[in-house]
Amino acid sequence: MSDTPRTVRARPSFDHCSIAGALDALGDDWSVLVLRELFFGVHRFNEIQQDLGISRSVLTERLGRLVDQGVVRAVPYREPGQRERHEYRLTRSGVGLLPVMVALMQWGDQYVNDGHGPVELRHRGTDELVGVELRTSSGRPVEPNEIEPREL
Amino acid sequence: MSDTPRTVRARPSFDHCSIAGALDALGDDWSVLVLRELFFGVHRFNEIQQDLGISRSVLTERLGRLVDQGVVRAVPYREPGQRERHEYRLTRSGVGLLPVMVALMQWGDQYVNDGHGPVELRHRGTDELVGVELRTSSGRPVEPNEIEPREL
Repeated sequence: MSDTPRTVRARPSFDHCSIAGALDALGDDWSVLVLRELFFGVHRFNEIQQDLGISRSVLTERLGRLVDQGVVRAVPYREPGQRERHEYRLTRSGVGLLPVMVALMQWGDQYVNDGHGPVELRHRGTDELVGVELRTSSGRPVEPNEIEPREL
Repeated sequence: MSDTPRTVRARPSFDHCSIAGALDALGDDWSVLVLRELFFGVHRFNEIQQDLGISRSVLTERLGRLVDQGVVRAVPYREPGQRERHEYRLTRSGVGLLPVMVALMQWGDQYVNDGHGPVELRHRGTDELVGVELRTSSGRPVEPNEIEPREL
């Protein structure tokens, strides 16, 4: 026996897979791009619609889905002399999707845009670049080949 | 003027958005679930097909797309007495998608599976739990509200 046990792993069971669950909750690419808008500070229906270039009905449907999933909430506001409208804000679970978005962005920067993406993320306090990293619970950086998935 | 400049930001331009580019490269949810299989050590067509419960033609199409995108490569192998087959491996850019998968999994664990996902990721050396975190380039942890997107 070796010191580091090497289990011969059966194929993992993917019942209740959290990745599949997250994809299902998100919906399609439009939903992800709506979330991108909210992350980047675009909160109003007309502005989101204009950025994405989609129909009002498609955007209404996607926003409704994200609200139903609890990742977005609609907040009423009223401009002087106009009817009440809503703007859209991320909930706590919506903010929890930020690492997904940043990871997609990081990958797209590197492999779609050849290392020159159109947007960078900076830390407000220190102005340092911000990204996602694989880390252990004690904060130690992790290489992909050091990760072992384990069924519970 | 304050010490920390607060720019009134115009809406960011999303031309060449890396998030949209990454989503486009990935394809649909099936493609993400194929990548999950490869991350979790399932590399053969029949096993992937069985896990996902999809038709051979859909899996063939998704694998072909991932190969075309350069995130997966087909590696020939031959069992004794059988014809040559291929198994599928992540390329370097495919491995670069691991933070996306881990971020989706983390979110799904918390918000779809109420904190009790079916799989956990451990560091092979230390047995610590592994996850993705937002960090600055110098390794300092970052809260979502400390991030400022900046157009280049």
